[in-house]
Amino acid sequence: MLFFTQCFGAVLDLIHLRFQHYKAKRVFSAAGQLVCVVNPTHSLKYAPTRCAAVQTSTEQGVLPPCHHHEAVHDPQLVPCTCPLFSCPWEGHLEVVVSHLRQTHHINILQGAEIVFLATDMHLPAPTDWIIMHSCLGHQFLLVLRKQEKYEGHPQFFATMMLIGTPTQADNFTYRLELNRNQRRLKWEATPRSVLECVDSVISDGDCLVLNTSLAQLFSDNGSLAIRIAITTSKVHNAEAEI
Amino acid sequence: MLFFTQCFGAVLDLIHLRFQHYKAKRVFSAAGQLVCVVNPTHSLKYAPTRCAAVQTSTEQGVLPPCHHHEAVHDPQLVPCTCPLFSCPWEGHLEVVVSHLRQTHHINILQGAEIVFLATDMHLPAPTDWIIMHSCLGHQFLLVLRKQEKYEGHPQFFATMMLIGTPTQADNFTYRLELNRNQRRLKWEATPRSVLECVDSVISDGDCLVLNTSLAQLFSDNGSLAIRIAITTSKVHNAEAEI
Repeated sequence: MLFFTQCFGAVLDLIHLRFQHYKAKRVFSAAGQLVCVVNPTHSLKYAPTRCAAVQTSTEQGVLPPCHHHEAVHDPQLVPCTCPLFSCPWEGHLEVVVSHLRQTHHINILQGAEIVFLATDMHLPAPTDWIIMHSCLGHQFLLVLRKQEKYEGHPQFFATMMLIGTPTQADNFTYRLELNRNQRRLKWEATPRSVLECVDSVISDGDCLVLNTSLAQLFSDNGSLAIRIAITTSKVHNAEAEI
Repeated sequence: MLFFTQCFGAVLDLIHLRFQHYKAKRVFSAAGQLVCVVNPTHSLKYAPTRCAAVQTSTEQGVLPPCHHHEAVHDPQLVPCTCPLFSCPWEGHLEVVVSHLRQTHHINILQGAEIVFLATDMHLPAPTDWIIMHSCLGHQFLLVLRKQEKYEGHPQFFATMMLIGTPTQADNFTYRLELNRNQRRLKWEATPRSVLECVDSVISDGDCLVLNTSLAQLFSDNGSLAIRIAITTSKVHNAEAEI
């Protein structure tokens, strides 16, 4: 009897854990700021496909022409820009957002400033946390990736890509901000276009990079809050650089 | 004759290079901001001495009691806090600054906001760029270190330490800012006390960390400009964290 009770308890625990892990992305507003809880997805991309080839060539220091799908004949068609899956879809840039929402179930949020709350930071690499952000009449893709560039030393890479052309991307500045434990880290840059491939941005390290110990310092109970803001880049460009 | 002319030219070039490399730290004011040119010093610390032992134990994940010199009997005496050399000096905290200036020739600058311009970023690790900064009635030690935590992958670590006790350090916030090529990276934190050992702060990664590619993006002609500001931490603490 005790054995059955224990089994039932274990099954309940498993269901609870599964619910915790796969629950839908939640959005709530804390102190007037839109907070979006983003659960991790184990990256399935490194299967022997197009993107596995990309990964290999970036490791060798050669940037792949990632924005040209091998099968693209119409230059107006772009491949699926989802960083998670090797998807054979291709279509016009204008319908990438609806493809990402419908096929890959990537959530989209509205608002000039949002807080991206990535849960379960302890999960092993490779893991991605992804959301779309609609702002200033455009859609952006925010990618946080846990990856082992050096074996045994996972790092976190965060970047924002415009779902648009590189010329359109030049008009914006995005800011990612971490703030906890009397430490603050801010990264500001021009977003890259999704046509430029998120893998190469992360391989280049041209994004916010966190080692595990810093990520822990900025985390609260296994979740990392990243405050995101997007502005038009006029002000940024006009400011004098050092 | 041609041979002697060429030899003479080569000797002149060498003298010029040596002068370029070892010239004194220069300070000039650009656009009202104090810019301090800091030349690198190849770290001589990893000789088989006290600090070599420190390095080994931090690699094993054990933080050494770095602030207690083995030979210290008077608890009011502190060891030399220079991160470059294993120096047998010990004295009261109040005279650490004059020891660092006189014995280790570390420059000191005045001003609430300065620009630390580290030259020759391409030099191999381990290399340190060090300056003292006098501000708000206290002296701070700014350390930029190039180090290979993972073999073959040098990284840059920047931190600011108060030449004072941990309790005094809690009253301040320091900010390091990089700004170039439409990218901006800001790190804000409470300075650590020099009694806590700069090596362990860097081993923990609790500082501004830059990989080589980011350092190159922020560099201009091999020099990295870091804008430094120190404030009292009341404002920082009062701000709501995410």
